[in-house]
Amino acid sequence: MRMRLAPLALAAAAIPALAADPPAVPYPDGYRDWQHVKSMVIEEGHPLYAAFGGIHHLYANALALEGYRSGRFPDGAIIVFDLLEANAADAAIVEGPRKVVGVMHKDVARWPATGGWGFEGFAGDSKTERAVGADAASACYSCHAPQKDADYVFSKARP
Amino acid sequence: MRMRLAPLALAAAAIPALAADPPAVPYPDGYRDWQHVKSMVIEEGHPLYAAFGGIHHLYANALALEGYRSGRFPDGAIIVFDLLEANAADAAIVEGPRKVVGVMHKDVARWPATGGWGFEGFAGDSKTERAVGADAASACYSCHAPQKDADYVFSKARP
Repeated sequence: MRMRLAPLALAAAAIPALAADPPAVPYPDGYRDWQHVKSMVIEEGHPLYAAFGGIHHLYANALALEGYRSGRFPDGAIIVFDLLEANAADAAIVEGPRKVVGVMHKDVARWPATGGWGFEGFAGDSKTERAVGADAASACYSCHAPQKDADYVFSKARP
Repeated sequence: MRMRLAPLALAAAAIPALAADPPAVPYPDGYRDWQHVKSMVIEEGHPLYAAFGGIHHLYANALALEGYRSGRFPDGAIIVFDLLEANAADAAIVEGPRKVVGVMHKDVARWPATGGWGFEGFAGDSKTERAVGADAASACYSCHAPQKDADYVFSKARP
């Protein structure tokens, strides 16, 4: 058996496509206990409506809070973009069901090709259904790249 | 000196107006680190626009989170209603300056006349400028009273 498996193991290790895929971004367990950074509503007619229409809240873990303060996010910093439907009626906008849990997870060694950040989106309330996967460079990083001076982060912390 | 001060002290203790004023509600120091419960936007034309127009976020301390789960808020539970201006432009609504930090602070012994809750509003970013003061019964509790079955709380916790 050992003789027959060895070539397969070598072959798998040599497949370039597998080696090039970025590591999966973990689901941000417990993020609802993290600090609420700020919120925003994106309505129909906004250029980002198709992707981000609704009301979103940003949450930051303790390392990400350091990043908001200093401008440089350390490895382990995680920012969650929690997007809910925004239901407008009777001169009020209330939160609806969750659309996606977007994640930026900083780790320079794991995600060197996308500014040191891993990007992912978890659909609805799922912890496993991934909306971004291997498309982070085109689906996320391409928009974040111009924010290089802010370590690729758009949001600012609000007191 | 002792002989002249004694009658004054007795007189002060006997003033009914002072005895009837509810205790002041403390400013909720550190509430921005508490859990974000939910948010809502109130726009022009809404019946509560004059008082609560803008985007508001609710934050709960650990004892208030118990209350959201069980339906009964223990003494020491504090809920903050953090009201910011909501600036609408280009199909987006973004947060503006803080308008008021509203507080509900549960303590049955301190605030028996208003459902066991102390109500207060701190203007803008001030920790001392009080918008409610001794008017809690008419300015706050009168609207909250019908919520008795939910321990006078309107909001529900969102996952």
